[in-house]
Amino acid sequence: MIKAGIIGGGGYTAGELIRILWTHPDVHLEFVFSNSQAGRLYHEVHEDLLFTRNQRFTDRIGPADVLFLCQGHGKAKEFIKSHPISDKTLVVDLGNDFRLNSEESEGWVYGLPEINKERIKNSKRIANCGCFATVIQIALIPLAFHKVLTEDIHISAITGSTGAGQSLKPTTHFTWRNNNISTYKVFTHQHEGEIYQTLGQLQNGYKGKLMFVPYRGDFTRGILATSYTKVGLGGEDLVKMYKEYYSDHPFVHISNSPISLKSVVNTNYCNIHISKHKDTVLIQSAIDNLSKGASGQAVQNMNLAFGLAETSGLILKPAAY
Amino acid sequence: MIKAGIIGGGGYTAGELIRILWTHPDVHLEFVFSNSQAGRLYHEVHEDLLFTRNQRFTDRIGPADVLFLCQGHGKAKEFIKSHPISDKTLVVDLGNDFRLNSEESEGWVYGLPEINKERIKNSKRIANCGCFATVIQIALIPLAFHKVLTEDIHISAITGSTGAGQSLKPTTHFTWRNNNISTYKVFTHQHEGEIYQTLGQLQNGYKGKLMFVPYRGDFTRGILATSYTKVGLGGEDLVKMYKEYYSDHPFVHISNSPISLKSVVNTNYCNIHISKHKDTVLIQSAIDNLSKGASGQAVQNMNLAFGLAETSGLILKPAAY
Amino acid sequence: MIKAGIIGGGGYTAGELIRILWTHPDVHLEFVFSNSQAGRLYHEVHEDLLFTRNQRFTDRIGPADVLFLCQGHGKAKEFIKSHPISDKTLVVDLGNDFRLNSEESEGWVYGLPEINKERIKNSKRIANCGCFATVIQIALIPLAFHKVLTEDIHISAITGSTGAGQSLKPTTHFTWRNNNISTYKVFTHQHEGEIYQTLGQLQNGYKGKLMFVPYRGDFTRGILATSYTKVGLGGEDLVKMYKEYYSDHPFVHISNSPISLKSVVNTNYCNIHISKHKDTVLIQSAIDNLSKGASGQAVQNMNLAFGLAETSGLILKPAAY
Amino acid sequence: MIKAGIIGGGGYTAGELIRILWTHPDVHLEFVFSNSQAGRLYHEVHEDLLFTRNQRFTDRIGPADVLFLCQGHGKAKEFIKSHPISDKTLVVDLGNDFRLNSEESEGWVYGLPEINKERIKNSKRIANCGCFATVIQIALIPLAFHKVLTEDIHISAITGSTGAGQSLKPTTHFTWRNNNISTYKVFTHQHEGEIYQTLGQLQNGYKGKLMFVPYRGDFTRGILATSYTKVGLGGEDLVKMYKEYYSDHPFVHISNSPISLKSVVNTNYCNIHISKHKDTVLIQSAIDNLSKGASGQAVQNMNLAFGLAETSGLILKPAAY
Repeated sequence: MIKAGIIGGGGYTAGELIRILWTHPDVHLEFVFSNSQAGRLYHEVHEDLLFTRNQRFTDRIGPADVLFLCQGHGKAKEFIKSHPISDKTLVVDLGNDFRLNSEESEGWVYGLPEINKERIKNSKRIANCGCFATVIQIALIPLAFHKVLTEDIHISAITGSTGAGQSLKPTTHFTWRNNNISTYKVFTHQHEGEIYQTLGQLQNGYKGKLMFVPYRGDFTRGILATSYTKVGLGGEDLVKMYKEYYSDHPFVHISNSPISLKSVVNTNYCNIHISKHKDTVLIQSAIDNLSKGASGQAVQNMNLAFGLAETSGLILKPAAY
Repeated sequence: MIKAGIIGGGGYTAGELIRILWTHPDVHLEFVFSNSQAGRLYHEVHEDLLFTRNQRFTDRIGPADVLFLCQGHGKAKEFIKSHPISDKTLVVDLGNDFRLNSEESEGWVYGLPEINKERIKNSKRIANCGCFATVIQIALIPLAFHKVLTEDIHISAITGSTGAGQSLKPTTHFTWRNNNISTYKVFTHQHEGEIYQTLGQLQNGYKGKLMFVPYRGDFTRGILATSYTKVGLGGEDLVKMYKEYYSDHPFVHISNSPISLKSVVNTNYCNIHISKHKDTVLIQSAIDNLSKGASGQAVQNMNLAFGLAETSGLILKPAAY
Repeated sequence: MIKAGIIGGGGYTAGELIRILWTHPDVHLEFVFSNSQAGRLYHEVHEDLLFTRNQRFTDRIGPADVLFLCQGHGKAKEFIKSHPISDKTLVVDLGNDFRLNSEESEGWVYGLPEINKERIKNSKRIANCGCFATVIQIALIPLAFHKVLTEDIHISAITGSTGAGQSLKPTTHFTWRNNNISTYKVFTHQHEGEIYQTLGQLQNGYKGKLMFVPYRGDFTRGILATSYTKVGLGGEDLVKMYKEYYSDHPFVHISNSPISLKSVVNTNYCNIHISKHKDTVLIQSAIDNLSKGASGQAVQNMNLAFGLAETSGLILKPAAY
Repeated sequence: MIKAGIIGGGGYTAGELIRILWTHPDVHLEFVFSNSQAGRLYHEVHEDLLFTRNQRFTDRIGPADVLFLCQGHGKAKEFIKSHPISDKTLVVDLGNDFRLNSEESEGWVYGLPEINKERIKNSKRIANCGCFATVIQIALIPLAFHKVLTEDIHISAITGSTGAGQSLKPTTHFTWRNNNISTYKVFTHQHEGEIYQTLGQLQNGYKGKLMFVPYRGDFTRGILATSYTKVGLGGEDLVKMYKEYYSDHPFVHISNSPISLKSVVNTNYCNIHISKHKDTVLIQSAIDNLSKGASGQAVQNMNLAFGLAETSGLILKPAAY
């Protein structure tokens, strides 16, 4: 059994990791480190973790084959400086500290299996990618891979409240958010950098812009994205191209009919639908932001890095409704 | 025109009062006092108050024929001590400071028109009643008035998130509350005192207990209550008794069929349905907690106190859906 | 008092008309005609219409100064053929039969006051515009009026379930729709025709395309739209242009800060926010689809046609939450 | 591997069974029989079943070690008459045909493991119990088992829309149900019979009545129940009694603090909290109506009947939010 530890246990992504790792056939969760919650039962903090029974958060970091860093953006760098980690230990950072190429991120692989599977297999440092970045990149990768992008890409996407984290703020107050819709960070969302980086790597010289409108939704889990751009290829060729590209990526499902958000909630799947409208290709894609957009993808990366089946522990029961 | 002022402008009940008073044909809202919001536009604080255009909160209390105190429980006593108010000015307190009989509440009338209409008409100090207290009392008053109560009364009621106010807390976080249901203060809710007081006044000697289970709902507005107790009267007699009792109470509607919460949201109505099951009478009642349960009732009380039509300014467009 | 009649009483727009007309100071609702509901109480069909007390649907069409046709798309033509209406009677059709210029729609004015106010004032036949068409046109009209459009316009907009009407279908089933998001009729929505027609009238020769992505939302009321296109004007000039254009349109509010859907729910307002991002102008706009997007706008049109104040009966109490 | 077949594939309980059986380590789902859906892919009917890839509903019933009957109430009797099933095949009926003792239900065991575990282990015919019946019985069983019930029991419980099945009806229309609450079948719910039967078996001679108020909630999954009755035992003794009673029932969790519905959604747990208030014990209990209240319990019963670990395949990832 692979020994796993989680650093930072009180947030949503840590809760989701515990949910997933608990039934992973090849992993044992050794400890969940949390300064703020040490000593409390898991299910005192995450109410649903009834199956963990008497397990408690700890303030001790024990030996582990893999460490998941769930501390929030900017905290991984600090943690690694203050807690040197062996080169033999796999580290998966769920924050954004090492996603963009820079001196500091040297040695880290960008953790999106749908483009970097082989590099992930041979890596001990994985920068898990962002939730919006995941759902949008999966919609666009085949186009960039085949170098058929020429124009700007227009994207609208709507996310659940768990994307905003656990902190209490006016936009997460139930009275405000229930039955309400709003946008935020239009054309300036911090995940754009990751997407530009990937598109540039796949299709060197592409100069188009992302016009990305993120919406706050009145639900808790999931992201539905709608992306479109002009391309020369026909509809059938595009569908074929996507099906081929994703043929050995088990968590990408190409749907023959339009999709809805709830088709993927509480799963590690990205469901996508491709259609052509005159000169424009339209790609809808949906993920669960906490699973494929965060903790599920972290486990998928871990599976690859340890040579396990990519889907190991990740065929999760959907909530469906 | 009656000159109205609101003390404490940032909370939900004040926002609701502005919404109602704005189109009241006999009232002009002179000022909304708020220490914390002074200088801001009404619609910077309450996003929907677009019709108020350039009106701003003030830190000055001007002359007024009626003052509505919307400062939160316990604050009215302090305010009145530090700001003596003329005996000619009508004061309606939306908090709980003067609801229960005591030395301090001398001179105040309990502001539930469905029992105290005549006293309210002649009063300058009105203690508006609580939201749960309103919906439950309207369900029970005819029984106590006719002195047919003999046994304990069992009540379950579910309230919207606006009942919990504007403050950010775990139970008002969208991620937690969406699609979630919970109870709180079971058998110990602070509104029980008001209900006991009324039942005791109407049916001296009744010794039954209220077994009241309050639920937190995953919606924003409204309360639906289900009350039952054993009574000797038959179903038809009961319906007749309720119809008679409420015949001159314009905001109580006796429905022939079972009711749903949304039949009253954004209105000042209490919708009720009475049915008999063997030896037990079941009364369902629904109100909007911010309107009939707070600000709408405050205006209804003001209408009575000024000799206006009871419904003046209170036939509000329902949201319906 | 203006005598009003409604043709087709069981649907959502008719219910909303009754809600609005009930307190309109210049109108008396004489009858609501409905073949299917004749004889039933209004509040047996629309549960919230408690203030209508004993009013019932009728199968007789009486004399009226204004008739509102609420029968669903395609039905107005039939009705008018089988029920010839005097030229002196104002007719407002809430369906889409007469919105687009054609031989059949001769004599009908397109009922969007924000472009056609003067024509509406002198008309007896008004084709009320569509809900998406309203919220999008109000976002775009000043640009076309000033002839500054040059490029395609990209629009995403999300609508509540009342937009889909009362019929039971898989996409209006609660279990499916709750917490779910989906798109429909992407790039082919039937309201595009109205918008193209208006833009062409205002800016003859504009050849850009509307790229419109409509979303189904998991709420009941309201539409939030996000529109953007490239324009040469700067941000301040644009805001000034919008403020000037809408200076005598009382139901368009230009917000200084980003808006949310619920700022307009249960009102007749369109709330908009304009911002410039490099070479692109972004306009967010929000309406209540049943009010400003249907029945409220119908009353606004009626007000204009009868020479009443445009806002008469239309300062509605918002639901807010 | 145990060979499983499902009879009746299009409904919610069948979808949930497929979700659960798909990752059950000891079971292979051989076929899902459906007259109406035969030939269609599972995920054309249940959108989220992406992991089933190319599996299709069939109109042929193959050999199986266990058959789950998911056809709706009243259909199991018909099916068994027209399709005689070997005595060696385990049959679990998710409908209500064989739950109550009668001539017809001879040979069937009532499938609530928390009272009938030993009988279930030796049975080939299991009548899975109802959802409300499950959550309420788990709240009451220890009291009846220890024969301490003396008075009436008062119960309010709220259920998600999946409890009403897939059919389209006014009370499952999104526009009506969103943010709405209502009651139905008050004091007459069909699950009362099961509960009376169990209480009578455990505490012969108990004559109290169930006063059960079922609520329709504005969410999709889960039931929260609140039950109370007068008992002589003290609070600590009661908690101890419940902990002991459920000590070898792995899916009942006794919580030290009040519970919320979402603590169990998408799991097979029943979470309960016991507290004493003067002479009254209050028991809150929560389950997922489709899992512990239907399909999860069916698998739990199957596990017992085949001698597997009771929890096999049933430690499901919660949705949590």
